[in-house]
Amino acid sequence: MADRPGLPGAVSTPAPPPADDSVDAAIDAADAVGFVAVGTPLDPNLRYLSRVQPADHGSAFVRVSGRSVACTPAESVGRANAEFDGEVATDRVGDPAGERAAAVLDEHTDGAATSTGRTVLVPPRIPHDAAVYLERAGYDLRSTAAVAEARATKSDAEIDAIDAVQRAATAAVREAERLLATADSGADGELRREGRPLVAERLRRATNAELARHGVTDADNTVVRGRTRSDRTAVVRTASAGNTPLRAGEPITVVVAPRGPHGYHGSLARTFVVDSDGGWARRAYVAVESALDAALAEIDAGTVARAAGREAGAELAAFGFDPGSAEGPTPAPGHGVGLSRRERPSLDANADLQAGNVVAVEPRVADPERGTVRVSALVVVTAAGYERLGDGDPSFTPRG
Amino acid sequence: MADRPGLPGAVSTPAPPPADDSVDAAIDAADAVGFVAVGTPLDPNLRYLSRVQPADHGSAFVRVSGRSVACTPAESVGRANAEFDGEVATDRVGDPAGERAAAVLDEHTDGAATSTGRTVLVPPRIPHDAAVYLERAGYDLRSTAAVAEARATKSDAEIDAIDAVQRAATAAVREAERLLATADSGADGELRREGRPLVAERLRRATNAELARHGVTDADNTVVRGRTRSDRTAVVRTASAGNTPLRAGEPITVVVAPRGPHGYHGSLARTFVVDSDGGWARRAYVAVESALDAALAEIDAGTVARAAGREAGAELAAFGFDPGSAEGPTPAPGHGVGLSRRERPSLDANADLQAGNVVAVEPRVADPERGTVRVSALVVVTAAGYERLGDGDPSFTPRG
Repeated sequence: MADRPGLPGAVSTPAPPPADDSVDAAIDAADAVGFVAVGTPLDPNLRYLSRVQPADHGSAFVRVSGRSVACTPAESVGRANAEFDGEVATDRVGDPAGERAAAVLDEHTDGAATSTGRTVLVPPRIPHDAAVYLERAGYDLRSTAAVAEARATKSDAEIDAIDAVQRAATAAVREAERLLATADSGADGELRREGRPLVAERLRRATNAELARHGVTDADNTVVRGRTRSDRTAVVRTASAGNTPLRAGEPITVVVAPRGPHGYHGSLARTFVVDSDGGWARRAYVAVESALDAALAEIDAGTVARAAGREAGAELAAFGFDPGSAEGPTPAPGHGVGLSRRERPSLDANADLQAGNVVAVEPRVADPERGTVRVSALVVVTAAGYERLGDGDPSFTPRG
Repeated sequence: MADRPGLPGAVSTPAPPPADDSVDAAIDAADAVGFVAVGTPLDPNLRYLSRVQPADHGSAFVRVSGRSVACTPAESVGRANAEFDGEVATDRVGDPAGERAAAVLDEHTDGAATSTGRTVLVPPRIPHDAAVYLERAGYDLRSTAAVAEARATKSDAEIDAIDAVQRAATAAVREAERLLATADSGADGELRREGRPLVAERLRRATNAELARHGVTDADNTVVRGRTRSDRTAVVRTASAGNTPLRAGEPITVVVAPRGPHGYHGSLARTFVVDSDGGWARRAYVAVESALDAALAEIDAGTVARAAGREAGAELAAFGFDPGSAEGPTPAPGHGVGLSRRERPSLDANADLQAGNVVAVEPRVADPERGTVRVSALVVVTAAGYERLGDGDPSFTPRG
């Protein structure tokens, strides 16, 4: 953000406080006895609630009677005691997390069960084995979106965390841009550097190495593609796809969504053309930049989220591009970013944006023959509009 | 592996064939109508079964009547058709994966339901919402470990995939070793490179950048620590922990468990001491190396898995180290490695090792005051013993 002081690195960002209030409100509204989340290390709900990267084995978070309890496998109890602000209930070795969560609920609801009912709120994706333990213990499970909703509005500390990761994303895309700007293109149009073809996979690895140098992981999300599809999906099947040389004149998209050690993501998409001769890619780039500006003009607390997507689409259409016709269903024109790479709010949702939402606005034009042109901006919604996170500016012709 | 030709890179490793036979056998044994797995992109069971990195939204795999069906969100159907060998059933936009899976089961069991029963096998961690859809559709869910068991025995293609990632792991640890070997230690013992303190976080980032250059992700698993705890956990809470300078004379552990684009992991732990003066760390290193050799001598198809862990512990005890007393519960002396960083078989399990198991053997000595000394070897179990994966050798004094 413009007025945010330089951060010493993605690593130093503190975790935000737990969202006990949202969970308590949902418990009250549902007349439930408590709330349970169970998950794996990267489960965003569990991470959000416990502020600890959960252990490999299932961990659980229980909210009951105004208290937060982390149910932690025995081998992680030292870490949990050091990091978790609430109580820590250690599993006996091998105890399933769901069984331990049921035991914690039992302790806190003793005697009150018959009078208040036994409804327990859970996120929609609680593992089935945990659900079975809770149901066997006599609890009725009811799904709640309270945590996903609470996650959509970021605290200042969360915004700082995302901003730090977005700075790393910007640096990594700049490194890709630098490699493209200093590449040679031979008579055949294939890009080369240091005597070797600059293939998509080589650029992807260099981008990821730059992310790592900034202390964040690429999280398997980095995609580099030229006109022909050569992204991470293709390279899983065949080495040759990622080894297709990138070419002068074709749009080259670099998309990253790295994750910091605190679990928060950045999100950045850029498109470069080496030795552009204008033509389709240039026109598409102007349209996409204009669509980005049109979408950003709609970003404001109290404005319906889908207005941004609608304006972006109208702008692309005004330039003669049909945002919906290219490659199957249109991707959403933008989405929230946080502990998940994509989360609420979606920019095609029929709900108002709120101050503290962090959204990636990412218009694109895709053509099966000519390739894809896309750019993005990551912004935090404010009462006065928005502020940009990270420090990147789009450029079409790569600059070293 | 010694006799395996050099691989062009982690990226080019083909995916192994699906494990239909194991699933069909489990279906038959349970007299079930089929098998359903539902999960997120990194769910190892779903990835193993479908051979496709699942989409962000829940995807499902259904095995019924000898056929494999991938239930894929609409935005991923092109990819699924290109990559999945079985049938692809596309969700209508917004259809939950569990609902689509139930529909696929219904199509294939029409009429037979009343006579054969409606049991459906699922992995233990199927999401609760998917389970609810299946149960509402009239199916009784029963957990099966068939997939986890099948995953423990690797095909040649899977071993190649792990070997390629392990080579990247070796290169990354060598880079860390090189940085340590060429560091300066001042009068205060703090290590410095290029005029700046060589803190644990700096070494961790350099290690991860080398992993990225080899086309694999660190998967948030890289831990660098000196005598004082300064690993990824601590840095989440405070920047200062990862910024503690590493020191001459203290054991510095570098632990990586990267993941390739195909989803398979490597696993490597090394301990270095800069300017060692012998003493405790040297003695611990000799004991740990000896324990590794003792454990490896027990690795053999048909030998009980826990024999390796037992021998490692006995060897440490013979050197005067108590493997169980250091920092809470003893970590397992080793474990399987594959689509999960840790999977079956555990080297404290009471089951026989089988040819094709890939196991990380990782003895360690930990002392709250002096630090941790650990090494590891990643091996594939064979009828004649084992073969080492990757190409690393332990060293105690860092070599540039």
